[in-house]
Parts: sequence; structure tokens; C-alpha cells
Amino acid sequence: MTPITSGSGKSLTQLFVEAATEAIEDSGVDRIDAMYVGNMMSGFLQNQEHLGSLMATALGREGIPSYKVEGACASGGVATNAGVKAVLSGLEEIVLVGAVEKMSGYTTPEVTAGLMMAEDKARVAATGVTFVGLNAMIAREYMRKYQVSHEALAQFPVLCHENALTNPKAQFHKKISADDVLQSPLVADPLRLYDCSAIGDGAAALILAPLEKAGEFTDSPVRIASSAVATDTLSLHQRKDITSFEASRKAADRAFKAAGLGPGEIDLVEVHDAFSVLGVMALEDLGFAEKGSGVQLLKDGDCFRDGRLPTNTFGGLKARGHPVGASGVYQIAELALQLSNRADNCQVPKANTGLAQSVGGIGSTVAVHILKRGD
Amino acid sequence: MTPITSGSGKSLTQLFVEAATEAIEDSGVDRIDAMYVGNMMSGFLQNQEHLGSLMATALGREGIPSYKVEGACASGGVATNAGVKAVLSGLEEIVLVGAVEKMSGYTTPEVTAGLMMAEDKARVAATGVTFVGLNAMIAREYMRKYQVSHEALAQFPVLCHENALTNPKAQFHKKISADDVLQSPLVADPLRLYDCSAIGDGAAALILAPLEKAGEFTDSPVRIASSAVATDTLSLHQRKDITSFEASRKAADRAFKAAGLGPGEIDLVEVHDAFSVLGVMALEDLGFAEKGSGVQLLKDGDCFRDGRLPTNTFGGLKARGHPVGASGVYQIAELALQLSNRADNCQVPKANTGLAQSVGGIGSTVAVHILKRGD
Repeated sequence: MTPITSGSGKSLTQLFVEAATEAIEDSGVDRIDAMYVGNMMSGFLQNQEHLGSLMATALGREGIPSYKVEGACASGGVATNAGVKAVLSGLEEIVLVGAVEKMSGYTTPEVTAGLMMAEDKARVAATGVTFVGLNAMIAREYMRKYQVSHEALAQFPVLCHENALTNPKAQFHKKISADDVLQSPLVADPLRLYDCSAIGDGAAALILAPLEKAGEFTDSPVRIASSAVATDTLSLHQRKDITSFEASRKAADRAFKAAGLGPGEIDLVEVHDAFSVLGVMALEDLGFAEKGSGVQLLKDGDCFRDGRLPTNTFGGLKARGHPVGASGVYQIAELALQLSNRADNCQVPKANTGLAQSVGGIGSTVAVHILKRGD
Repeated sequence: MTPITSGSGKSLTQLFVEAATEAIEDSGVDRIDAMYVGNMMSGFLQNQEHLGSLMATALGREGIPSYKVEGACASGGVATNAGVKAVLSGLEEIVLVGAVEKMSGYTTPEVTAGLMMAEDKARVAATGVTFVGLNAMIAREYMRKYQVSHEALAQFPVLCHENALTNPKAQFHKKISADDVLQSPLVADPLRLYDCSAIGDGAAALILAPLEKAGEFTDSPVRIASSAVATDTLSLHQRKDITSFEASRKAADRAFKAAGLGPGEIDLVEVHDAFSVLGVMALEDLGFAEKGSGVQLLKDGDCFRDGRLPTNTFGGLKARGHPVGASGVYQIAELALQLSNRADNCQVPKANTGLAQSVGGIGSTVAVHILKRGD
């Protein structure tokens, strides 16, 4: 994982190579059979496609199969899903999944327009609504429907900023309080600045292989117990209820079934908290809390690293950072570090299983991965 | 497959749904487990990403896993590769692979800039060279190195225009001669207008399933005997020889090995003739002719539908059309129609095996698929 910063001054290629090289060196693999590159906005922001060949070339590994996989802000999650299928297919054995996004160096309107590519250009983006605006509608409705206060939701970014303090790669190292959230500048009512993840550049990478092969390179492999993707209607106006993401529920359901586990058997979770309300909704939609009561987990201290369900232990999208198309791979890399006891100052005391949820658009694509200690 | 036209007036969604619906109805499948959407330029031209959820929603199939796969002009080829891996992984059984590109409705400079996203933005596109310009360098060097005349290369578009006459979905229905090619307007020396594929809108789709499952829906399934992808360095200046595409040779080698076949056992071929010279180079790189002698196949009449190696039997990129990210799926759909005796007025007399080559960038990504009659 590269550190996430706004204004890295690094190109897409530099970011990707930095993360991929670290993953290759860390894993000790002697070859890469194929690469899957997750990214959302390179066509729009960098006027660069063909990241498959570009990144393979930059790594000095041209020749191998390599292509880009995109699912908006869930691009990292779906790229991992593509990598998992590649290994399961038997066609490729050692696979690199890398994801990258460069968001800084552009004007805010440019990035805002880029993010709206996750929604329907013709019917929704054309109205002028922004991605933050759509999430603000969700927050407003969630707060109304479940009578949850903004202060209660604000505990999510408070948690993430707390966890990011010990993550040297996090974008923000600043402890905040719920009051700080409520008093930060308004972005799109009711969302305030500290409710929102920020613009950042970053890349993360994973090495996937059949478990027996992984055992040749490490004593602490981490097993991908399941990888599931689900979609929902692209746009909010097509939904009956905007306070729950059906794609999260479906992807989680599939992932739990395939892994033979239930929410009660998950020790550690990384959720897609692009906005405070999404973090809380995720805890509910993934089965860790009843609808409307996700904030209770925060209130009870369950989500802290020493709690019952450590959540976003490296700082999450809010404080570790959210280079959109890359975040899904950061999450899985972080779970892998936790499950192999290599999370340094972010390490949780004891975890055998972890779940990562990566969301594209307004809950329109969700990838859920469940990881287990491989030994 | 939709007809390919410049100025369809149709949106990405309309094009995709038209092709996908035809594929679903034609196959008679009762469900779709997942979708893979091939596309190159939607972020740049339509400011629209997230085609996975967008297209699943438009088809009324939201919920299923669905994401975009991109490999420049080989996006259709690599999307098919992703679909094949999904089926082989055992995670998904009935998979829709669809690819779409909308290129018309924009200025030529806009489309030209879009196509250059296949090359390195920072080092190559920034010089001002165009995609046609890069291919012109290849043509010039190929003609010099192998002492092949422009007139001989021009037989490739002549062949394609001849074959497209009986394809109602082809972009061009116009017989041309080598003289017409040589006298057409100069685009980038030595390439002339009729050496180049044109701007077009189109979408194509396939239904993939394990062969035994396919047998439930059709008496004439077509087997994907192998699916292989290879990359090369992204840019021409990184190559020792620009008159041969190593990625074509590698992908073909892998595909032949996996299928247990050699070039001599292929009855029918679809190659990526975005420019005349690329069609000829493809015949060589895929093993059907010695380097420098690809034009001999054309001269001997081998490539016509009644010849020894029918080539681009629906008109190829040049005359059927080249909606860039979609072309790779058109090729495979056309092979499938041939191998199931459903190619109507494009039907070749007898074919049991076929090969499709889809190229991204300047030979930087190549997907090769080998198909066989499934019965």
C-alpha cells in the first residue's frame, strides 16, 4: 500500500508500481502469471486507459495477461473478485491484483464530475446533483426514518480518525470528536466536512495464489474464504428504500454462504465509510446490527480495536483515505495484515476471520470478501 | 450484435441492451448469473463509468454480479476472457459477456484523443502523434522491411468489403478495389482512408456456460477451446521490431497449446484489421503465414469464404465496423454463428474450428480465442 495523500505529485504508474513492487517483494513470489488492475477514473481524469499493459510494462512484466477492471468506487473490490476467479479457473496460478486512483491535481469540480460517472450521466448527473448530494439524501432519510442523531452517526468518523493515528500510511493523523464533526463546514446538508472521505492518491496490491502454492512462500498465508459481488439499480430514484443497500445484503449473503460463516463468526470488518452514514448502514446491511441500530455498536465501543467487532482498524475510507478505485484493495490488504499478525500498531488482539465491503456508486455495486487465517 | 453505424443516435445503454437482449433470446437461457461488460472509452467520451450496474439495471437484471473490463481496443476480447474464467471458476454458470462502444456524435479530434488513451499519455500521446500515425509507422516499416507493396496490403480491405456485402449488420456495403484504396484520401502516410477502419457505434453479446449446461438450451453449442491474453510493452519505441506483435504470437501460442491445436487445424479466422497492415501482420503472427508473406494468402485467394482459410467472413473491422471496445465480441459472435451454421449469407462451406484475435493499442494487449463446434 502506498501512503494516501492529496497532492502526491505521483503519476498513476508511479503509485501502482510502488504498491505492486511492495506486494511482490513482501510475498517473495518468483513470478506473476497475470495482473488485474482496479481503477475508476483514469479515462476521465488522466485521459489514460489500457492500464493493463501500461502497468505490466512499468513493472517490467509485459507479456503476462493484464487488464483493467472497473466498478466505480468498488473497482478494487471487483478487481479482487476477478483475480479470485482467475486463480479458481486454474488458468493462472500467481495473480497480482492492484488498484490505483489519482484524484489530486485536479479542480474540485473536475473530481466531482469524475465521481458522478458512478451514477447515470443522462438521467441523474445531468440534473446537477453531486455524489455528495446523493449521499446527503441518504443521510437525511436515514436520520428521519430511524430517529438517529447526527451526533450518533459522527461516532463513525471519530472511530476512524482514532484508528488512523497509528497507521503511518493514513491520509489523516488527527484525533477528532463528534463535536468537531458537527461543527465542521457544511458540504451537503446534513453532511459536514468530517462526515466525508477526502480526495486522495493511492495504490494497493495483493498477491493471490492457490493456498497450497501460497504455502511455498509464507508461513502465514491468508485464505480468501469467499468473494462475492452484487449489483443494485444504478440510481437512488429506482429504489424503494434508500436507507439500506440491497447489494450489500446480497453480496454479504452470498459471501457468508460460500464461506460457511455467519456475521457472528466475523472477528474484524472493513466497511466502505465514504460518508459517516454509509459506515453505519454497512454494519447493519452486513448483518452485524439490526436496521437503525448500527450506531449502538459504536456507542458500546464494539468497533474499537479492543472491542467485539474491530471496524476499519487502519482508519477506513474516512481517515486512512479513499482513492476511490483503490480502496477495495486497501481493505483486503489491511485484513490480510491483521490476520497474519503483521498490522504493527494497528494490530487487533485476536482475529481469525475478517470481512471487507467495497461499494461502487450509491450502493449500486458491492463486493464482499471474507478472509480467514490460512494456517 | 447490433448493426454498426456512425450516427446511430443510440446511447451506450440502448446499444448494449439491444445486443444483450438478442443474445439472451437467441440462447433461450432462463437466467443470467453474472455479466462482464467490455468497453474502452465511456469514461472519456460519455463521462460514464460503472457500466456494470448501469447495464444490469437497464436489462432489468440488477442484483447479479456485473462489472466492466477494459483492455483498450481489445476490451471485447479481454471481457470474454474474464467471462471464460468466471465459468471455469465454478462461481458462475451462465454468464453474459457484452461489449459496447459509442464513438459517433463527437468531433474527430475528440475520438482521436479517446483512441490515444490506448497509448502512454505522458510519453507518447503528449508528443501529438495520433493512433493512426503510430500505425502508419508500422505500415511504412513493414513495407520497407519485407518489400511488400501498398497494393498488396490493400487486398485486405478489398477482401473485407467483399465479405461485408452479405452481412446486413456491416457498417459498409460497398465493393472496393485495390485501386480505390490507393486513390482514397491520405490519412497518415502511407495509410489512406480505405486502409483504416472507421468510427462506429455498436454492441455485441455472448452467452457462456459450461458445455453440458449449454446443451440444455441448444443443439448446436460452440465450444470455447481456449482463451488467452498476452501483453507487450505499451509503446512502439519500447519494441525491437514493430513489424510483428509479440503479444499476438504469445497469446496465439498459449491458445493453441491450451486447445491442443495448431494453425494448420484452424478453418476460419477473425483478425483485428484496424488498419490493412495489421490484418496482414496478424495472419503471420498467428502462424498462418511466414513473416513478410501474409499477402500471399490474399493473392492466392485463401482468405475468401471459399478459400483455405476464410478470414473476416463478416467484413472484419474494416467493413463490418470497429466500435473499438466491442469488436472483440463481434468476432467471437461471428465465429459462433459460422460454427453453428447460422451465418446466413456469410456462411462458409465447412468449418469446425475458428480463431479470433482482438488487439488493444499498438499490439500492446492481444486476446486470442479458439472455438470449436461443440457437438
